[in-house]
Amino acid sequence: MPKIDLENIEPTNRTGYPEPFDKPVAGRWQRPLAEATGLTEFGARHVTLKPGAWSSQRHWHDNEDELLVVVSGEAVLVEDDGQTLLRAGDCAAWPKGTTNGHHLRNESGSDCVFVVVGAGDCTGGGYSDIDMLFSGDGRYVHKDGTPY
Amino acid sequence: MPKIDLENIEPTNRTGYPEPFDKPVAGRWQRPLAEATGLTEFGARHVTLKPGAWSSQRHWHDNEDELLVVVSGEAVLVEDDGQTLLRAGDCAAWPKGTTNGHHLRNESGSDCVFVVVGAGDCTGGGYSDIDMLFSGDGRYVHKDGTPY
Repeated sequence: MPKIDLENIEPTNRTGYPEPFDKPVAGRWQRPLAEATGLTEFGARHVTLKPGAWSSQRHWHDNEDELLVVVSGEAVLVEDDGQTLLRAGDCAAWPKGTTNGHHLRNESGSDCVFVVVGAGDCTGGGYSDIDMLFSGDGRYVHKDGTPY
Repeated sequence: MPKIDLENIEPTNRTGYPEPFDKPVAGRWQRPLAEATGLTEFGARHVTLKPGAWSSQRHWHDNEDELLVVVSGEAVLVEDDGQTLLRAGDCAAWPKGTTNGHHLRNESGSDCVFVVVGAGDCTGGGYSDIDMLFSGDGRYVHKDGTPY
């Protein structure tokens, strides 16, 4: 059945972020759409951001394209040059290699639901506001290379 | 600006389908999101299906994964084994190589808006209901190989 039975995909708020960077994403509940449906050409997640939650730490990818579609609710997109409100029906795109870090913050009192798609090599990139980098092996390191 | 300015992307109802297969998609207005934003790892289209319009002829891809998110309105997903109503917030996925052809028909009285993402090799595939195939060079041919 191509229609995805979202209710039967277990949402998770798991994160690999070290403390204290994990706290703002504790209210980010993700359903893995690609794994659940057999898609292999790109990744896709159905995300419910609870009030107050962030989509991630503010980041960019060196070699991964991202596209986001807001399904319901609203969230604030934060970047180097300011904030932009995204509402249901809005889309946003981040071509790989754009080092203007981004994330969404749900500053409303209701859930924000979005779908995000990514493809490419997700191992390279960085974080705008904190002393953290992606390492080549999927772990997180300080900007001087020492592990968390 | 990562938020996509949809109003400034010209929608097109252009199709390469030969007559009379072009008629049902005349009310399909597409905005190319990847080309407009610099994404290269996957394709993405923002689609408004006018009442009565189809998303495509019923088809499948041999080597391309597809994911669709309904943003507003509703449409009927048609496949070999029946019909499924898709409403705002619903998602559907078609892993490459699934030969159960699919398309959406807007049988409502209002626009249906969705975003569809695809990645892989889009040259191989077929049509379920009509005498047409994708050719290797992007043109359409009869199932006996003769061109339209």
